[in-house]
This record gives sequence, structure tokens and C-alpha cells, in this order.
Amino acid sequence: MESVHVRLGPRSYEIALTTAQPAGVGPFARRALPASTAALVVSDANTASLANDVEATLRANGFRTASVTVPAGEGTKSLAELSNLYDALYAMTADRRTAVVAVGGGVVGDLGGFAAATYNRGLPLLMVPTTMLAMVDSSVGGKTGVNHPKGKNLIGAFHQPAGVWIDTAFLDTLPDREFRSGLAEVVKYGVILDEPFFDDLEANAGDLLAREPATLRHVVGRSCRLKADVVEKDEREETGLRAVLNYGHTFAHAFETVGGYGGWLHGEAVAAGMVCAARLAERHGLIGPVLGQRQLALLTKFGLPTASKPEWPMDELIAVMRRDKKAAGGNLRFILPTRLGEVRLFDDVPEALVRDVLAAP
Amino acid sequence: MESVHVRLGPRSYEIALTTAQPAGVGPFARRALPASTAALVVSDANTASLANDVEATLRANGFRTASVTVPAGEGTKSLAELSNLYDALYAMTADRRTAVVAVGGGVVGDLGGFAAATYNRGLPLLMVPTTMLAMVDSSVGGKTGVNHPKGKNLIGAFHQPAGVWIDTAFLDTLPDREFRSGLAEVVKYGVILDEPFFDDLEANAGDLLAREPATLRHVVGRSCRLKADVVEKDEREETGLRAVLNYGHTFAHAFETVGGYGGWLHGEAVAAGMVCAARLAERHGLIGPVLGQRQLALLTKFGLPTASKPEWPMDELIAVMRRDKKAAGGNLRFILPTRLGEVRLFDDVPEALVRDVLAAP
Ligand SMILES: NC(=O)c1ccc[n+]([C@@H]2O[C@H](COP(=O)([O-])OP(=O)(O)OC[C@H]3O[C@@H](n4cnc5c(N)ncnc54)[C@H](O)[C@@H]3O)[C@@H](O)[C@H]2O)c1
Ligand SMILES: NC(=O)c1ccc[n+]([C@@H]2O[C@H](COP(=O)([O-])OP(=O)(O)OC[C@H]3O[C@@H](n4cnc5c(N)ncnc54)[C@H](O)[C@@H]3O)[C@@H](O)[C@H]2O)c1
Ligand SMILES: [Zn+2]
Ligand SMILES: [Zn+2]
Repeated sequence: MESVHVRLGPRSYEIALTTAQPAGVGPFARRALPASTAALVVSDANTASLANDVEATLRANGFRTASVTVPAGEGTKSLAELSNLYDALYAMTADRRTAVVAVGGGVVGDLGGFAAATYNRGLPLLMVPTTMLAMVDSSVGGKTGVNHPKGKNLIGAFHQPAGVWIDTAFLDTLPDREFRSGLAEVVKYGVILDEPFFDDLEANAGDLLAREPATLRHVVGRSCRLKADVVEKDEREETGLRAVLNYGHTFAHAFETVGGYGGWLHGEAVAAGMVCAARLAERHGLIGPVLGQRQLALLTKFGLPTASKPEWPMDELIAVMRRDKKAAGGNLRFILPTRLGEVRLFDDVPEALVRDVLAAP
Repeated sequence: MESVHVRLGPRSYEIALTTAQPAGVGPFARRALPASTAALVVSDANTASLANDVEATLRANGFRTASVTVPAGEGTKSLAELSNLYDALYAMTADRRTAVVAVGGGVVGDLGGFAAATYNRGLPLLMVPTTMLAMVDSSVGGKTGVNHPKGKNLIGAFHQPAGVWIDTAFLDTLPDREFRSGLAEVVKYGVILDEPFFDDLEANAGDLLAREPATLRHVVGRSCRLKADVVEKDEREETGLRAVLNYGHTFAHAFETVGGYGGWLHGEAVAAGMVCAARLAERHGLIGPVLGQRQLALLTKFGLPTASKPEWPMDELIAVMRRDKKAAGGNLRFILPTRLGEVRLFDDVPEALVRDVLAAP
């Protein structure tokens, strides 16, 4: 079996990559959680049947299990749903060795992960991601949390999983729009860290969109490796190194905020944000036209949006970007490419350039 | 100024010990939190006026401040009050450098500390303990958390403070019963770790009860040092070493649970628990009679209870002890003294002995 090893000293763990091996979770959990004999399996309405299979293989491998299915959707990342998970853990008389197993997308992973981070001052966590976004991004790196009514992901903790089990066959039922949205983060890894991987993506875009298993494993595995490389260097976002992962995200955050509920999916916003960021880098004199052209072509092939929506007021977008967490003291800060496979932080970008770039079709 | 240094690598911090220097908090906070320019000051109804003084000195030292006063009492360690703190942090547009300053007893420290542990994945925390228990125990060691409706401290995180400011004059308004209750944990440190300190306590019991400032600083400082020594060796309660701090606590937990609301304060339960534990060690053949006699005399001098209440049903007490977190698989486990200044974990204590000990007057 292919796997990616995340090296974080005593918090190191393995990301297993496989296809159509649902019965593999149990043995993997046995290895990743040697001291655990009980597990709470968390899923949402759309992943409950996958979670059932996971629960069966955990039971077959000596785990006592309980399960909770939360409603699907971002609204589930709330203190109220968190409290339900605490209740479930209490009801199963969880102790510090009881594992939380999150079977779902980023919502289930972030919520279940935060419950694991905070129940009894920390339970072991196994991630079983079922969306493209969760496989390549949210289940790697240890960020867990829920939303505050006024802001996304405001409440949270770093809590590394004890293992991640990725079965690409779980993607079979994922709606196409969700799948494509996850590919935006994959493209991001190529642009910020790995030119040959970007070449790969161009060459294999068709197989990827067809969800060809070997291609999926390669692309997901490489994405996990690249994210893990960054996380290994800056586990708790302290040195600024982890900020490279925010490429495209200052714009994306503005699109998501102004677009509001029913607007773009996260990856869609990231796609358009990366197009803006590359254009900004070009106007700022950092790169020539080729990077932006190739990125635009690939995102277009993946059916992702590549520009802001004309109906979103420019002034509102700018205002959100100035309040962005990555903005120190209201300055406009961007992660921008200096060549394909390399980005840097810039905090001296004139607002006029940003407006130009947002206005481009 | 006297101080105790807690050595935890990058999470090291200083515990400052002083008397009647309320204006010292601001400069101390400046040193302990060099990157912070804003602080949320948390207090309860009985510490609000102390918190006012703290806020003033923080402002005088360049901090923008906001404050929240929560109701006094254990019920405040709830998800609902936690949510109020999150709201206050949001309202002051807290970022990762915004500090939480907890001015109060263990309730304020645990609640404020957990908010700090989980807002924005971790804010710096300054502890300003105002009860004896908080000064010698809860503000040292990084445990933070709130209660689950079904169990105490079930929800929590390890989050070390950036500094602890102890001003013994804050104890001036503390009710006598609360003060004496905190002394139980002080006696505990002597018994489990430090015979000369136990001798000191016997020699200076009168000064201590009179809250003589130099005696208070010595006793609080030594207690912090002893707890810090243990925490430095087992920061996250992983090796079992930190378990020595649970001396007397298996019994205490049973007394608190069966006694319920309106029963003993925590330290009162710990005092009676330590008497039971010493007696158990004697019956188990680990020690002679002297340790128990000296401990009993000192606790009596401190006006603390030294036996279970006759009206508490023995079977219920035993049942709670078997469910105790420290009990693996329903076994009875105890931290017992092997001599004054040394304890070990025993999991082979016959239930009959435990019953004998509980029945003693
Ligand atoms: N922790 C991190 O590092 C991190 C990183 C990026 C994003 N996130 C978070 O992740 C969340 C978004 O994650 P997401 O895009 O996976 O959203 P999601 O979890 O809401 O999943 C998207 C939709 O797909 C459904 N679904 C999931 N798996 C399925 C499957 N196999 N078949 C059919 N339907 C399936 C879900 O029920 C949901 O309706 C956000 O809350 C975001 O904040 C976290
Ligand atoms: N985190 C840890 O390591 C740890 C360790 C031990 C106990 N605890 C927790 O600590 C809590 C108990 O702490 P506590 O005993 O300090 O209780 P507390 O915080 O409730 O304080 C006791 C009472 O004294 C009042 N008070 C506080 N300071 C005062 C002052 N200077 N003058 C007058 N009144 C004052 C409070 O308002 C309260 O009514 C429990 O919730 C327990 O779980 C935590
Ligand atoms: Zn993203
Ligand atoms: Zn205690």
C-alpha cells in the first residue's frame, strides 16, 4: 500500500492511500491506535453509509464502537453539534484511549477533530476523508475547529491525527462540483511548491477528471506529501512558513464573504483567487505571462471559476481583504508566485493593482 | 522579586511572587507577553474589583483591554459561559496576539484558560490567581477546561500560561474556609515530595493561618516549585509521573461525588482523602504510624476534615472509586506514601482494607 509519512516527532503519523479497500481501515486503526479499544465514528448524512462500513471493520478488529451522524453542511461546525459529540463520548464512557474516527469531508473532520482535541484533554483521532478537499487538505496538518456565529474557524485547536486513511473509492459518490472544487487546492500545491507536479496535472487532467484510481492515488498522495512538508516545518503556524498554503486565499476569503451563503464552494473561490493572485504578481513585475496562462488553462479544464463575479462590489471585497487575518494592521498582504513552484509573501502591494486585477474578466 | 521558573522548553514561563504590588502586573505582562497589545481580563463577581486594578495597570502599560465578569461558582465552567468569552474576544477583534488574563480562582482560570486555548487555535494566557487553591495548584501546569453536564473537567486542553502573577495580598478578602481548603493541597506537596517542607508547615502553621505575608510567599512559592517539578517531567500526563499529584484524590473524588452540591470544598475532601490514604498505607504495611499522625495533626490545626462523613453510604463511595479515571478497568488504584516525602502507585489494594479505612472515625 502506498503511504505518506508525516514527521512531527512524537506526533508523527501515516497517511495510507488505497482504492476500494474498505476492510483495510480496521487493521490500519489497530496499528495507528495500539492502545485504543473503543472508537466513536462521526459522519454526516452523506457519509453515514461509508461510516457504517468503517464501523464494521473497526468492530471486526477489536474496537467497541459508537456512532454519531451529524447534519451535512457548514452549519454543523457549531458549539451545539460539538456538545452532541461530547455527550456521545460521555455515553460510551470514553477514556483517554477512546479514539474519534471522522468519516467525511472537512466539516466532519474539523468538528470531530476538535471534539477529539478537547474531550478529556485530548483523544486520539483517525481521519477517514471522503471529499477531495478533505483528502488533500483538511485531514492533513492538525487544524481542527468549529465556527463562531460571527466568523469561520474562530474556535479551534491544533491536534494531529494518529493516522489518516484515504480510500479514493470513497470519492465515487462525491458530486462532481465538490470533486472539482477540491482540485483547486491540488493545483495550488503545484503552483506554490512543485513545478513537475503541475506538469503532471496538465498531462493527466483527463484521467484525473475521470477519477482514474491510479491517477487519483498519485495526485492525492503528492498533494498530501507537499502539505506535510510545509506542516513539518511550521506545525503550529508560528514561523510564517505555513502561510504559503494561503496562496489565492486572501482573494478567496473575500469572494466567500461577499458571495455569502449559496455562493461559491471554497475551492471555487480559491481557483478564482489564484487567477487574481497570479495576475497581481504579473502586474507587480514578479513573473511573466506564462504562469498565469497555464494556471488559467488548467483551472478552466477543471471547470473552475477564474474571475470575480461582476455583481460583487469592489469596495466590499477590498474591505474584507484588509480585515483578513493574514493582513497585519489593515495592510493588503498576498502570497504571490515568483516562478512556477515558488511563492513569497508581499505586503507592499498597492490597492490600485488589486482593484485592476479584480476588475479583469 | 521572588519567582519560580517553570521549564518547559519553548513553553517555559515565570511565576512571580509578591505582596501588595497590584501595579506590578502591567510591567510583568509586558515582559511575559512581548508581542501582545490587547488583553481580555476575565474575573468573577468576587474578583471583579481586583480585576479592575489589573486592567488599569495593563492599560498603563500599553495594553488595549476589555473585560468580562462571570458569575462566581463552579456552574460557570460551562460551554455557555465559554461561548460568552468567545463573543467578548470577537467583539474586541482579538487576533492571535491578544492575551487572556484570568483574575480569580480555579473557576476563572480554568474557563479563561480554555477560552485562550481554543480561540483562534490558541491565545497567550496570563494567570492572576486570587485563591489559595489557584495560587498553589490550578494556575500552574497548563490544565484548562470546563465541565460537561455529566462530569467535571471532561472538556479541556493543555495550554501553558505565558506567565503567572501571584500577589498574596489578593488573599486578604478570601473567606477563611476557602483559604483553609487551599492549604490541603499545600500539605499534600509536603507529604508526596518534600519532608523538610512538611516540617516547615508544622513549624509555621500559626503564621500561615494568620496569613503573614513572608510565610505566605514562602509556602506558595515552594508549592508552585514542587508542582512545577512534576509538570516539567510529565507535562501532558502521559508517563504516569504526574499521577503523584493525585494523592488523596481517589477518596476525595468519592467524597465530592457522594456529598454532592453543598458538601465539602475540594480541599476539604482532599484533606479527608489524605487521612484515608495514609491509613490505607499503614494497613497495607507500607509505613508506620508516625506519618499518619503528623499529617492528621497538621490538617486538624488547619481546621480541615479528617474522616468520611458517617451518613455517606460506603457502597456508593466504593462504587465511585472503582469508576475513577485513575482506576484502570474498575480496579482500586491509590497513590500511597512509602515514607514522608515519597509516594507510589498501588493497584493491588484489597477492597476490605479500603472499607476499614473509610469506616474509621
Ligand atoms: N482543517 C483544515 O486544515 C481545513 C482545510 C481546508 C478546509 N477546511 C474546512 O473543511 C470544510 C470544507 O470541507 P469539504 O469541502 O470536504 O466540505 P463538507 O465536509 O461539507 O463536504 C462537502 C459535501 O460533500 C458531502 N460528502 C462528503 N463526502 C461525500 C461522499 N464521499 N459522497 C457524497 N457526498 C459526500 C458532504 O455531506 C457535504 O454535503 C470547511 O468547513 C473548511 O473550513 C479545513
Ligand atoms: N487546572 C487545574 O490544574 C486545577 C487544579 C485544581 C482545581 N482546579 C479547578 O479549580 C476550581 C476550584 O478553584 P477555587 O477553589 O479557586 O474555586 P473558585 O474559583 O470558585 O473560588 C472560590 C470562591 O472564592 C471566591 N474568590 C476568589 N478569589 C477571591 C478573593 N481574592 N477574595 C474573595 N473571594 C474570592 C470565588 O468567587 C469563589 O466564590 C475547580 O473548578 C477545579 O476543578 C483546576
Ligand atoms: Zn483552502
Ligand atoms: Zn486537588
